[in-house]
Amino acid sequence: MRVGPSQDEIRRQNLGALLRHVHVHGATTRAELTTTLGLNRSTIGALTADLAGAGLVSEGTPKETGRAGRPSLVVRPESARVYAYASSIEVDRLRAARVGLGGEVLDRRDLDRPRGMDAAETAPLLAGALKEMHDRVTADTLCVGAGVAVCGMVRRADGLVRLGPTTGWADEPLGATLADTLGIDVPVTVGNVADVAVFAEHARGVAAGCDNVIYLYGDVGVGAGIIAGGRRLTGHGGYGGEVGHMVVARDGARCECGSRGCWETEIGEHGLLRATGRIEARGRESLLAVFEAADRGDARAQTAVRQAGDWLGFGVGNLVNIFNPEMVIFGGTMRDLYLAAAAQVRSRLNHVGLPACLEHVRLRTPKLGDDAPLVGAAELAFERLLADPLDVG
Amino acid sequence: MRVGPSQDEIRRQNLGALLRHVHVHGATTRAELTTTLGLNRSTIGALTADLAGAGLVSEGTPKETGRAGRPSLVVRPESARVYAYASSIEVDRLRAARVGLGGEVLDRRDLDRPRGMDAAETAPLLAGALKEMHDRVTADTLCVGAGVAVCGMVRRADGLVRLGPTTGWADEPLGATLADTLGIDVPVTVGNVADVAVFAEHARGVAAGCDNVIYLYGDVGVGAGIIAGGRRLTGHGGYGGEVGHMVVARDGARCECGSRGCWETEIGEHGLLRATGRIEARGRESLLAVFEAADRGDARAQTAVRQAGDWLGFGVGNLVNIFNPEMVIFGGTMRDLYLAAAAQVRSRLNHVGLPACLEHVRLRTPKLGDDAPLVGAAELAFERLLADPLDVG
Repeated sequence: MRVGPSQDEIRRQNLGALLRHVHVHGATTRAELTTTLGLNRSTIGALTADLAGAGLVSEGTPKETGRAGRPSLVVRPESARVYAYASSIEVDRLRAARVGLGGEVLDRRDLDRPRGMDAAETAPLLAGALKEMHDRVTADTLCVGAGVAVCGMVRRADGLVRLGPTTGWADEPLGATLADTLGIDVPVTVGNVADVAVFAEHARGVAAGCDNVIYLYGDVGVGAGIIAGGRRLTGHGGYGGEVGHMVVARDGARCECGSRGCWETEIGEHGLLRATGRIEARGRESLLAVFEAADRGDARAQTAVRQAGDWLGFGVGNLVNIFNPEMVIFGGTMRDLYLAAAAQVRSRLNHVGLPACLEHVRLRTPKLGDDAPLVGAAELAFERLLADPLDVG
Repeated sequence: MRVGPSQDEIRRQNLGALLRHVHVHGATTRAELTTTLGLNRSTIGALTADLAGAGLVSEGTPKETGRAGRPSLVVRPESARVYAYASSIEVDRLRAARVGLGGEVLDRRDLDRPRGMDAAETAPLLAGALKEMHDRVTADTLCVGAGVAVCGMVRRADGLVRLGPTTGWADEPLGATLADTLGIDVPVTVGNVADVAVFAEHARGVAAGCDNVIYLYGDVGVGAGIIAGGRRLTGHGGYGGEVGHMVVARDGARCECGSRGCWETEIGEHGLLRATGRIEARGRESLLAVFEAADRGDARAQTAVRQAGDWLGFGVGNLVNIFNPEMVIFGGTMRDLYLAAAAQVRSRLNHVGLPACLEHVRLRTPKLGDDAPLVGAAELAFERLLADPLDVG
């Protein structure tokens, strides 16, 4: 049963709204904040003073505006002082960044990750990169958390990776292991890579302002991050969005999950490599070689890419009928496949999708490109600060 | 950008929360309301006085409790005075009811509806039943709205029925036509039957307390009402939940939507009747005859029912992977099919569903039975009152 908030909660909500605004939109004048947040000048003044007192924002005079009269003070996020760690564990690489409030990447590390490396080896490797950045940070700064994007199913409650078909991990307590290894006293939050990517594109990417979005992310497997009615769809345990295991062909190829004919057997890495005779090949480079071969006119590669594009449109059609989204975003290897076979995708989508569900849907590639998982992981880490700025700050 | 609510909004939220509580749970003592809503005694007293002043609730002494001391006053919804109209347009019948605040059905009418009857004929027939009930209502009552459940895709903004495969309707302005024909000055809200049914089961049925629910509703076609993270999934235009048009067999039977192999071609009425050689048969009675024949040992009917049950489990498995729900509810003809082929449903679901997505999912039939669309249509009509009681009351 939902009841009205207390005075304390209202203040917390307002502090969060103000901080989120400058976090997403950057430096903003008090006058703009008054209009956008619908609060009066004195409230904005008091909230800004509280946030500045906690070292989360600073105030200053704006650049010359050319307009007469006393200029409105500008509120800026303290990007150099307040930051989060963001990491992305991918099939053959690890990425780590230190991201300032406001979204600026302050430092970053990219590492190779041998395929098959287990969680017990991966966590210290990643922790090492994070600690290396942490050693260079001065004492007057504030770390608000660490977010990690990982391919696979992640239990929302504690960051346990239930099943990572890409990494081969099963029931790995990644959240706990990383927190232990890291030895920095901040909460570690783990999210599925597609979930954090849609979060990033919704906050500061191509889906800003869209309330119903599907972000389809391909690596070895395929998953989706879904925004429905303005909120991330997580499902009961945090496992929602496993669209790669929507079965599209009853007697199709065997999937690593144990079932047959899962969508990812047709549009994922394995399917495309298999269809072009690259039986032993693995990884993004091998996949890009298929798209390049198709581009050069290789008939077998062209057929395989067109067929995978057709299957991509097929599954997107199903999702469009189920979710009636405004936007579908193709990220990771789904971006490559979509760009290589846009005609097939669109044609099959138009066939499968119901007219009413198709009429407002836009197909897009990510604005944040390959960095979406990293940006989203940072957003995941900032979420707690933005929900209750003074408690964290 | 979400900001904190004003004092007025807090009061409105609290009034709505109190009224919703007695609407869903019935007569409640002030002491219980204080605990449940987390408000103090004087606030509960003031809110109750406001709601009683508007004629929405009444207060009185409770029945003998056997406990010493002054008993806490009981707050009751004014069920006899405050009501909504609820209607359900089904393929071969129309149902209409007058439902009191608190959910009690005060009056009802059931009518046959010849298959193929268009919206222009259906609206006055339904309006007639509603007006007949309205003529018997005394002057000191308050009608807060009329909700209508209809099979088909409904535009959220204005109740336009975009596509009703069941009724054969296309782009019928049902909301507007019914409001005109009815001639009672209340807002008319139209919702898809599965959407209103899940709303009903979530409010006062088997899914009370569940935040992630899929209600699968079968008539001629198949659709779903979906609750994700505690809120109804509507999609951008209101067309979300068209799971019957998830294509499960690329080269399957032609669907009325123009595509091939849609899930409803395998589990819907047509598929089962076709598979048992009942080529010309239509309607719920014909379908029940198939289940009865299977029950009697008719081999062809048994094969058809088992196969449809297998397909039912197949699609539910896909939805379980996509949504990670706590509960799947089988309503309408899906209830009959599920009960007739539960073993096949469960077996295929276990095969298609990912273990993590399966571990908390419960399969259920509706608690509200056939009345769910009607109860949900009433909830749809009450929604505005519960959001802002004094504005409507």
